[in-house]
Amino acid sequence: MDEFSLIRNIFQQPQLTEAGSVPDQGIGDDCSLISLPADQQLVQSIDTLVADVHFTANGDPYLIGYRALAVSVSDLAAMGAKPHSFSLALSLPENNPEWLQRFADGLAAMANAAGISLIGGDTTRGPLTISVHVQGIVPKGKALLRSGARPGDLIYVSGTPGEANAALPYILGEKAVTSDAEQHLVDRYWQPTPRIALGQWLLENGATSALDVSDGLSGDLSHILRASNCGAELFSEKLPVSDALAEVCGDEAIDKVLNGGDDYELCFIWPAGKPMTAQMSEQCPTPVTCIGHITKKKGLWLDGQSLEPGSYNHFSN
Amino acid sequence: MDEFSLIRNIFQQPQLTEAGSVPDQGIGDDCSLISLPADQQLVQSIDTLVADVHFTANGDPYLIGYRALAVSVSDLAAMGAKPHSFSLALSLPENNPEWLQRFADGLAAMANAAGISLIGGDTTRGPLTISVHVQGIVPKGKALLRSGARPGDLIYVSGTPGEANAALPYILGEKAVTSDAEQHLVDRYWQPTPRIALGQWLLENGATSALDVSDGLSGDLSHILRASNCGAELFSEKLPVSDALAEVCGDEAIDKVLNGGDDYELCFIWPAGKPMTAQMSEQCPTPVTCIGHITKKKGLWLDGQSLEPGSYNHFSN
Repeated sequence: MDEFSLIRNIFQQPQLTEAGSVPDQGIGDDCSLISLPADQQLVQSIDTLVADVHFTANGDPYLIGYRALAVSVSDLAAMGAKPHSFSLALSLPENNPEWLQRFADGLAAMANAAGISLIGGDTTRGPLTISVHVQGIVPKGKALLRSGARPGDLIYVSGTPGEANAALPYILGEKAVTSDAEQHLVDRYWQPTPRIALGQWLLENGATSALDVSDGLSGDLSHILRASNCGAELFSEKLPVSDALAEVCGDEAIDKVLNGGDDYELCFIWPAGKPMTAQMSEQCPTPVTCIGHITKKKGLWLDGQSLEPGSYNHFSN
Repeated sequence: MDEFSLIRNIFQQPQLTEAGSVPDQGIGDDCSLISLPADQQLVQSIDTLVADVHFTANGDPYLIGYRALAVSVSDLAAMGAKPHSFSLALSLPENNPEWLQRFADGLAAMANAAGISLIGGDTTRGPLTISVHVQGIVPKGKALLRSGARPGDLIYVSGTPGEANAALPYILGEKAVTSDAEQHLVDRYWQPTPRIALGQWLLENGATSALDVSDGLSGDLSHILRASNCGAELFSEKLPVSDALAEVCGDEAIDKVLNGGDDYELCFIWPAGKPMTAQMSEQCPTPVTCIGHITKKKGLWLDGQSLEPGSYNHFSN
């Protein structure tokens, strides 16, 4: 069997091709074919991860595969979409079946967690680069956009952002992992949780805006402010700081929460006066925290001081 | 303006974003949004081109952009699809606005020729790598697959394959272009013509199979034979050899036609006894040539001799 037939076989496992919706035509022709219910829109995103820019090339291929798909699925979650299917464009520097099998296993683990099927792809020789194109569905006109925030609305974030960024010294081998807290941060970097159920709950229950925090909370929130033509006031004592982050980063923890990227939590906007928490915790147990509110006055403010959005550029940009 | 804002501006030109179907939501949110008519299927493909594997990194960026989109659109043509929209994942080794503007201009030229709109993308730092995800639409159940060929059907190819492969010594700088014929071959390499109108005509008028010739006619035809569980008999005197190819390659021209890749012509299967040419030449003036027929006996045969499909691996694989 030649190399590219072997690769095709590795990716044609049912754990990948039947993890979610089954296409009308999947891998094996010039193109895939899917149908779409008439009352739905197709939600799509493409992301590229480059070795030693977005992840360490010598990382565990299982985790590289898991994370590559998680990062893209997170964009679907941010729109409130139900995951449907994905395509993979993979450049590989060498023929290494063991590496590829573990990569595919990690990809399959996330595919099953997200309920999303592999329907097409392209494998080429080249520097290690992973492009993932994902698609999901939303009821027509209901997707969570960046442009819906209004003055007075509340600003929420899911989970505990900042942890992935705090893991970088350990990921890069600059520091050794010596505690459970440090290991927790490393796990959060490699295995982010796309907030799929939360995104769909928010869509169904009336959130006004959402996005996923890939580049840092302050910078990503600013995208909502620009698209919605408004400002935001945040309060440092409300920011969710995990025990692990506090233990490892001390006084720098708040900076990590505000400016650290790679967590793939959702930042979302909720209408003031609309009850949420009790109802939500039953139906969707993702932890969320209110960290401030939308203002008519432009700009981003923390405890009354102007805050410059941190521009997070991953680790080697 | 920071680098990535500049890049966004270059790609948000209407020549790209409005070249074909306009999405419900294009560039600027976490995801794009499209709707699909209820009687259509969505046809999708992803392809990656790596610098110095699939094209020369020092080539004209206009031609690199033009060709990158043409190669992917060709997969839509092979299914008989009408192009709809595409996403671009681009890794760039350095910030070079002039390079990027010319790349985008080449991309826009093909986008307008094909009637396909840019709806999303991702730009990262990394080795020069271009992934293009394209999508088109077909009437439900009508797409041209590889599995429809039946014994007795006729085998056709469009245009004059072999020219792009014959251009490689000039593309790679191993030989200098000194004649119009050589320049013609180089032009065919950089600016292939996706056979969109032909693909749609074939879908509407009853072709039984089709694919695009990316890796070489004999190898790609073998994909149809495998999927359709049959064989094929070809005749060397019927193979279309262009004047330029004959002039430059002499006795090797037939080998180029059979095994050269990168032409992106369509190879398609047509029911025997069904009239085609007169009707077709009016509605779709793409030149096509009947080169043989499908046989019940497995295998690929040329003038009665068994033919080993050439495995074409681009120029540096």
